[in-house]
Amino acid sequence: MKVRILVSYKKSILDPQGQTVKNALLTMGYNFIQDVRQGKVFELELEGISQEEARKVIPEISDKALANPIIEKFSWEIIE
Amino acid sequence: MKVRILVSYKKSILDPQGQTVKNALLTMGYNFIQDVRQGKVFELELEGISQEEARKVIPEISDKALANPIIEKFSWEIIE
Repeated sequence: MKVRILVSYKKSILDPQGQTVKNALLTMGYNFIQDVRQGKVFELELEGISQEEARKVIPEISDKALANPIIEKFSWEIIE
Repeated sequence: MKVRILVSYKKSILDPQGQTVKNALLTMGYNFIQDVRQGKVFELELEGISQEEARKVIPEISDKALANPIIEKFSWEIIE
């Protein structure tokens, strides 16, 4: 089974990387860009675990090891 | 319109960040983890552009500014 976990800053948190990318794209002439937010993506290959178990353990892993719950949020999905 | 662009290393490229995360998760006892790959996610808010135009320009932006096509690949979707 393969799961994809997206980790990004909460809305209230400034995102200087995203801001820098936005400014670069505007400088390049892409003036339809309103906002850019940058985050991380993790793709985990799992074996020997049911979808039901994954639904319990993936949020736990995300919270403990992949995201900082004070400033980041995560979402995830099974992709394979 | 909102688009999400995922950028990750090509399969043939070593991913030391993903490897480190994998090792950390194994140490924490999550021994069903076979592999971890880490990448970047960009969420772009666009205005004044049609879906058709977006389909042309988003791959261009990804290739020029968000991914390094020599070692990275990207995928993208319209999410809003």
